Amino acid sequence: MWAMALISALVGLGLAGYLAYYVKKQPYGTDRMRELSEAIQEGARAFLNREYRMIAIYMACVSVILFLVGYITNKIHWASSLTFLFGAFLSLLAGNIGMRIDTAANARTAEGLRKDFNKGFDIAFSAGAVMGLCVSSFGLLGVTIVFLLVTNLNFDVAALASNVAALASIFFGFQFGASSVALFARVGGGIYTKAADVGADIVGKVEENIPEDDPRNPAVIADNVGDNVGDCAGMGADLYESYVGSIIAAITIGFMAINYGQIPGAPNLSTAKNQLANLPYYPLYFGAIGLISAIIGIFVVKGMKKSQPFTRMNAGLIVSSVIMGFLSVLTVHMISQGVYTLPFAVPLIGGLIVGVVIGISTQIYTSDEYKYTRDIAKASLTGPATTILEGMAVGMLSAAIPVIMVAIAMISSYYYAGVYGIALAAIGMLSTLAMSLAMDAYGPVADNAAGIAEMAGLGRKIREDAEALDAVGNTTAAIGKGFAIGSAALTALAFFATYTQSFQEGISMDLSDPRVAVGLFIGALMPFLFSAMAIRAVGRAAEKMVKEVRRQFKEHPEILEGKMKPDYARCVDISTRWALREMILPTLMAVIVPIVVGVCPGLGAEAVGGLISGAIAAGFILALYMANAGGAWDNAKKYIEKGNLGGKGSDAHKASVIGDTVGDPLKDTAGPSLNILIKLMSIVALLFAPIFFI
Amino acid sequence: MWAMALISALVGLGLAGYLAYYVKKQPYGTDRMRELSEAIQEGARAFLNREYRMIAIYMACVSVILFLVGYITNKIHWASSLTFLFGAFLSLLAGNIGMRIDTAANARTAEGLRKDFNKGFDIAFSAGAVMGLCVSSFGLLGVTIVFLLVTNLNFDVAALASNVAALASIFFGFQFGASSVALFARVGGGIYTKAADVGADIVGKVEENIPEDDPRNPAVIADNVGDNVGDCAGMGADLYESYVGSIIAAITIGFMAINYGQIPGAPNLSTAKNQLANLPYYPLYFGAIGLISAIIGIFVVKGMKKSQPFTRMNAGLIVSSVIMGFLSVLTVHMISQGVYTLPFAVPLIGGLIVGVVIGISTQIYTSDEYKYTRDIAKASLTGPATTILEGMAVGMLSAAIPVIMVAIAMISSYYYAGVYGIALAAIGMLSTLAMSLAMDAYGPVADNAAGIAEMAGLGRKIREDAEALDAVGNTTAAIGKGFAIGSAALTALAFFATYTQSFQEGISMDLSDPRVAVGLFIGALMPFLFSAMAIRAVGRAAEKMVKEVRRQFKEHPEILEGKMKPDYARCVDISTRWALREMILPTLMAVIVPIVVGVCPGLGAEAVGGLISGAIAAGFILALYMANAGGAWDNAKKYIEKGNLGGKGSDAHKASVIGDTVGDPLKDTAGPSLNILIKLMSIVALLFAPIFFI
Repeated sequence: MWAMALISALVGLGLAGYLAYYVKKQPYGTDRMRELSEAIQEGARAFLNREYRMIAIYMACVSVILFLVGYITNKIHWASSLTFLFGAFLSLLAGNIGMRIDTAANARTAEGLRKDFNKGFDIAFSAGAVMGLCVSSFGLLGVTIVFLLVTNLNFDVAALASNVAALASIFFGFQFGASSVALFARVGGGIYTKAADVGADIVGKVEENIPEDDPRNPAVIADNVGDNVGDCAGMGADLYESYVGSIIAAITIGFMAINYGQIPGAPNLSTAKNQLANLPYYPLYFGAIGLISAIIGIFVVKGMKKSQPFTRMNAGLIVSSVIMGFLSVLTVHMISQGVYTLPFAVPLIGGLIVGVVIGISTQIYTSDEYKYTRDIAKASLTGPATTILEGMAVGMLSAAIPVIMVAIAMISSYYYAGVYGIALAAIGMLSTLAMSLAMDAYGPVADNAAGIAEMAGLGRKIREDAEALDAVGNTTAAIGKGFAIGSAALTALAFFATYTQSFQEGISMDLSDPRVAVGLFIGALMPFLFSAMAIRAVGRAAEKMVKEVRRQFKEHPEILEGKMKPDYARCVDISTRWALREMILPTLMAVIVPIVVGVCPGLGAEAVGGLISGAIAAGFILALYMANAGGAWDNAKKYIEKGNLGGKGSDAHKASVIGDTVGDPLKDTAGPSLNILIKLMSIVALLFAPIFFI
Repeated sequence: MWAMALISALVGLGLAGYLAYYVKKQPYGTDRMRELSEAIQEGARAFLNREYRMIAIYMACVSVILFLVGYITNKIHWASSLTFLFGAFLSLLAGNIGMRIDTAANARTAEGLRKDFNKGFDIAFSAGAVMGLCVSSFGLLGVTIVFLLVTNLNFDVAALASNVAALASIFFGFQFGASSVALFARVGGGIYTKAADVGADIVGKVEENIPEDDPRNPAVIADNVGDNVGDCAGMGADLYESYVGSIIAAITIGFMAINYGQIPGAPNLSTAKNQLANLPYYPLYFGAIGLISAIIGIFVVKGMKKSQPFTRMNAGLIVSSVIMGFLSVLTVHMISQGVYTLPFAVPLIGGLIVGVVIGISTQIYTSDEYKYTRDIAKASLTGPATTILEGMAVGMLSAAIPVIMVAIAMISSYYYAGVYGIALAAIGMLSTLAMSLAMDAYGPVADNAAGIAEMAGLGRKIREDAEALDAVGNTTAAIGKGFAIGSAALTALAFFATYTQSFQEGISMDLSDPRVAVGLFIGALMPFLFSAMAIRAVGRAAEKMVKEVRRQFKEHPEILEGKMKPDYARCVDISTRWALREMILPTLMAVIVPIVVGVCPGLGAEAVGGLISGAIAAGFILALYMANAGGAWDNAKKYIEKGNLGGKGSDAHKASVIGDTVGDPLKDTAGPSLNILIKLMSIVALLFAPIFFI
């Protein structure tokens, strides 16, 4: 059981090691390429190192607080302060390795393209796969170790199940650590990447009229670093959190089921003790099976040498999903002797399907092959205002399918397997994460490779090939964004379901109780406030960047003539400093609000129930709106740049550029941060639930 | 008791009649002014007549359905199909009279200004007061008549209280009628006004470079009609619905309290039969007291001949609020012999305060005297994209204070007087509506007067005076918008509270029930979908308008030279036709979704509870966001036009114009429509609750 999870995690790490070695042994190409790549690597490291220092301070404070709260109240296990550090450490480790390989792969991908298109893709995808495998494997490894510690500390699962609150807090500590790192990575990374991007564009493209990714632009390295920091490290930490969260929610609900003598919400399912006893173990099986399926999927991608990149990755995804679906249901069937086969198959496969449908829906609303994005492009003909309005409307409409899909998954999972079913749906969606994240993390590598091809002047053919790779990366990134949002919603719902069960006395979260309604209102408000903060933070950071780039051009006109190397490090430094500074307030808000509401007399645990459900509902919809409006604006601009509706330089194009600029912080900063907000608020609520006022 | 309500309603109507007579007897001014005013009046009538035809069809269908549902299921009283028509009729009547006087007052106000600034203000305010008085008086009259019918049909309040569902449905039918008219008026009016405005601006101001309100612009009359149709008729119907709704919610909860033997949610309050028996009557008292207080306030405004318009109106508002607060608490104290004094005073005065605070908060976020709007103006210096982003962020932040205020009002009202308290808070906020709506409806009159002064070439002094009047109108309109949103939220919450009590078997709307959670998700989605529809509708209608204006200019170049009168009627017709066509789908969605969710097996009444609470929370926040972002963009533009940051014609100004154009459909179409959406969904849920699947 747990051995299987450990072994597959180690296999995953082994493969990640091999792929990392494979990437590293590829040649860098010209000296110029090595130089650019190393500048990006250095910038990324600089950001991470500074971020680590900040995270270390936060971690130290929070773990001391956790320990003290645990020690004083005796309601939260003191060990949660350690698992908190452990969960954060593994997330940082996975992110760090993944990002090192990603940033090491950009020039090598460009160099690979010089040999052969497939070689280039192979390098970029391998780098992405390292990220995917690290995230999944470290996640599974970490949960399994915590599981082993917990069960061994107490020796006996049954005895332990009777003390669910203490037990759960050890797991939730781990999750809280993962969630905290994710918030820093997403919010900080999101501000970083957009400050650099907007700064580089406003001065470079708009004011000085030099092309994107031009090496004369002082912010160009920061911009490329930003792609990795935001899309790669941020996305990795986000999905690490969802992945770990889905497994942890299912495990803790499993223990609760043993304790309560039935699966909460599913009184008709078997209550035989030997059946219930297996519930905490299933999630580890599914994790192991999912990881193995993903590894097979990665081999499929690597093996289909002759197909197009998108076809290869899709094939890998389909193969891993089918294997996961089949093997997991088979496992349930065997272990439960058929008792839980259907009840568990529905949520598991439902979760898989939700992931796929959200991906397709994202495509429909954001790809220029469909009506919506083209409508936005058409609206550009009447100016920027109509472009913005149409994009807003498309973004709002795009929330419908995912919300309805998640609603269906939620209600059918609950119908078949109660609260446990909701956690299973999240597992179904996330178990093959190593494969889907590989697709996703491939994007920034391809994007950087295209940048390096441009900056190093590799010639038209290579640049076009790099852009073709990048285009595929944009598609997978868009799908990945939808996937990240959907999985965040399902994971947060799984936490919420756990929360509803974590009061032995039971609490009523009836909406007719005004405490619940007040919580709901404040909860729904949170994503709006959080987004506003993120948007304003990008604005402030970008302003600093614009000033710095202008200063360099003004003080050293030789830069623009190409006779002097701009001071890249200074721009990297500005992005880093401002991203980290602007991150503090939203982070504190996300952590503190649930605790304050929970311990406030007159509000309490019931209000927190309203709070997190309001935050999940509003945050999910707002995140979809922002991600898809942003994606659609981006692609509407690209559609015009392809020569439609007047093409580059036309008024319509200018309007579409404005749309894209508005969309950038929405889709890359505020939107993705909401994923973390809803999960973080939920896990804070769960972890601190024992000290809430009831 | 009921006689007092009847008498004050008749006094209100009498005063309205006198003021209407006063306005009508003022001179029109020059022939040109008469001509323009009559064109606007004719345009408004044309829109209303066509809208009435559409409403008539809708009304006929729905009342037949209501009758049949009542007849077949025997769960909804058949008379609700009649009160439905009655409620709609009174709303239309109030809106029609108000709008006739408003459109008749524009040229007369401009003419009044030629005599004396105060005379001009007096005419405009009198016209606004007619609207305010008609809405309040007809509302109170209607509710009182329904109350009399209901109590007399059944002869005995006690007997009747035992059949709360049937009784309630008669009231809810009335409310549903009011709500339906409000939806048509708000959505249709909102689309109308923005299609005309955007169409007139794009071709006139941007393409042909002719000033705002230039008589050569074929869409100019439609634009002026739109101000009345949207801001005046739409706002009136919206607040009529809230006003009536607050009273009806309190009356029905009063009957429920008699039936249940206690005030729901407040078991510690007196349960003496003679005390409970008064509960359904209090709302009529408060309505009467509020109306009389408002009338006194109106006299205060009329009397302070020497002060500035804004000071006069503020004084009127404060006087009426203080009198209302004092007299209503005194009345409770006397009738309940002190038993309910404090418990009722808290919600009543709390509601009054919420209204004031929301008004102040609206000012802070949208007036150029404060930081936020100036930040947007500053962001215009770096282009339209930053303008949009800053405005979005400001809009999102602006939701915080109102949400927290409503939350505090909700929880404290409930704490003191249970579910009845929540309805009382809504009454507290809305009882002096005649006064606050007078301030609000004054806005479009002043706006039109400024337009006519411009079109009729009345000279600089008069134009400046008219613009000064208009500026005050813009402020009161912004405050009025916040007030309308806040009152919609409180009224919807009162309905929601009523809904929670309207199942004698009792239902659990516990968020841990996935049906409730699914309802919540879909409910939170509704305002987004509805907004997207409204925004796209404006876009489509504006496109048609742009084409028509361009056609006229192209086919008759003499128009631009001022040698030929443009075809105003055609533009009015286009706005009318498209506004009404685009209204159908969102209307149906709002009415049908709650019923479908309610009768759908697997969802049912519990899911509807989640649905409306999700819709209220998300709709309230989104409405605030849209109204305040739109208002702030508008004022940021005006701030630059005053000569700041480069002034008119600068790049910053151009960017701010784009912000304003984006904000227009948000603040005048989508945002206000959400007020109705949340109330309409709630009342549909309430009315059809007896046939829901539990």
